[in-house]
Order: sequence, then structure tokens, then C-alpha cells
Amino acid sequence: MKPFLILTAAILLLSFTKGENAEQQIRNNMAKQQDAWNYGDIKSFMLHYWNDPQLKFIGKNGVTLGWGQTLANYKKAYPDKAAMGQLAFELSEVRELDKRSAFAIGSWELSYTDKEPVGGYFSLIWELKNGQWVITVDHTS
Amino acid sequence: MKPFLILTAAILLLSFTKGENAEQQIRNNMAKQQDAWNYGDIKSFMLHYWNDPQLKFIGKNGVTLGWGQTLANYKKAYPDKAAMGQLAFELSEVRELDKRSAFAIGSWELSYTDKEPVGGYFSLIWELKNGQWVITVDHTS
Repeated sequence: MKPFLILTAAILLLSFTKGENAEQQIRNNMAKQQDAWNYGDIKSFMLHYWNDPQLKFIGKNGVTLGWGQTLANYKKAYPDKAAMGQLAFELSEVRELDKRSAFAIGSWELSYTDKEPVGGYFSLIWELKNGQWVITVDHTS
Repeated sequence: MKPFLILTAAILLLSFTKGENAEQQIRNNMAKQQDAWNYGDIKSFMLHYWNDPQLKFIGKNGVTLGWGQTLANYKKAYPDKAAMGQLAFELSEVRELDKRSAFAIGSWELSYTDKEPVGGYFSLIWELKNGQWVITVDHTS
């Protein structure tokens, strides 16, 4: 095999591996988020959001700007483990847009022992920031 | 100036021009969508969606798949110009993720002469498909 072919093969292999890893990493992150939520651990849940003032969270009450305010909103809406319930994500698609950005869409449900479940849909933009895939835009409805 | 420098300058200029154009093109497309809606022209409004079975529209009732079904849903929900009202988009951010993808977030409002306005938020993924910027994922809440 000529050096050029070896190099091409190595680059192809690397790009396939990287591609697989990005989607898998995002799916793993969402599984970790689900687990963290279900342990009542909002701080660990928030590890997968971009820790930056430019993070955007679009919810029922409009656009929240920044990691700190998003955490504050979660804590206010879900003051304890009972209020948090049990979270289940159902991913309908994770697709890479390029090497540094991807989106994920799907549905979420919170179930409770003492009341009816609530749920809806989400669309997330994930970006590679400092070597980590993090949510930079969350639209939850 | 050496040929290498001229080439570098040309490439830099081209990339900046392209960058500016993408955001501007998306903003222009949304202005055209607003105009089309306000003329009661859903078909022209739909020109800015990816005409593909993989288009995804996430609304109150979940995920709609495909351009045809998205058009059908719009026609059903807004059967005539009176039902369509007057649309106003307010863009809060348009950001390119790479040369072929971008997102736009903001709010929308439909106003009527005979009833209260309705509105909410949107997040859109725009992608360059066959040389055109089109919406490939719409989450409207």
C-alpha cells in the first residue's frame, strides 16, 4: 500500500470513528442527564449545558439567557426530588450538522407517584466546546 | 504582492462574504415568509422549508414528518386569510454553525382584527440544500 493510500484510509477511519463518537457521546450525555435528574441531582444534570452566559433556554415563559439563570429556573420550578419526579427522554433523532455541531429532537415525560405525568417535546443544539459536547440551545415545549 | 498572498486574501474575502450572506439570506427568507403569510399565500411561505420527507416540524401535537404533511397541517389549521391573521416574526438570534448550517430563534405573533392575538416562540435549523438556505427542523411553541 502506498503511503498516500495509508494516509487516506487513516483519515477516513478517523472521520468515521469521530462521527460515531459524536452521536454516541450525545446519546450518552442524555442518558446521564436522565439518571442525574432521577437522583434529584440538578447540578449534574446541568453539566451537559454550555456553562456560558450565551446559553439559551426557550421554554413556556420565553427565552432564558445563560447557564446560571437556567439553573436558577430549574431549581425554582423543581425545588425537591418529589417535584422533579421521574424523567424519561425519548430521542427521535440525533444528527450531526458538522464536526462541531449537532441537533437532537425527541420527547420528555415526568412521571409521579401521586399525580398525572407531564411531558412534551424538545429540540436541542449540541456543540463541541472545549472538547465536550454541550447543549447550547434548548427549546422545550 | 506575491501570488500566494493574493490567493489568501481572495479566499479570506470570499469566506467573509459568504458568512455575511448566509445570515442575511436567512433573515431575508424569514422576511419573505412573513410577507407570504400576510398575503395569505401558504405555498410561498412553504418555499423556505426543505421540500423533503425528512423535514421535521415540532408543534403542539408532536413531530410532523415531511414537507407535504407540514403543508397539509398548515392548510388545515389556517383554512383562509382570516384564520391566518397577520404574522410578525421577531428574531432574537441567527447564528451560523458552519458553512452549511445555522439556527434562528425568536418569537412569533398572529394578530387579528376580531380577536386576541396568539403567539409563542420558535427555533429553526436552517441548512444549505441545493444551494438554498431552507428550514430542516422547525420547533414552534
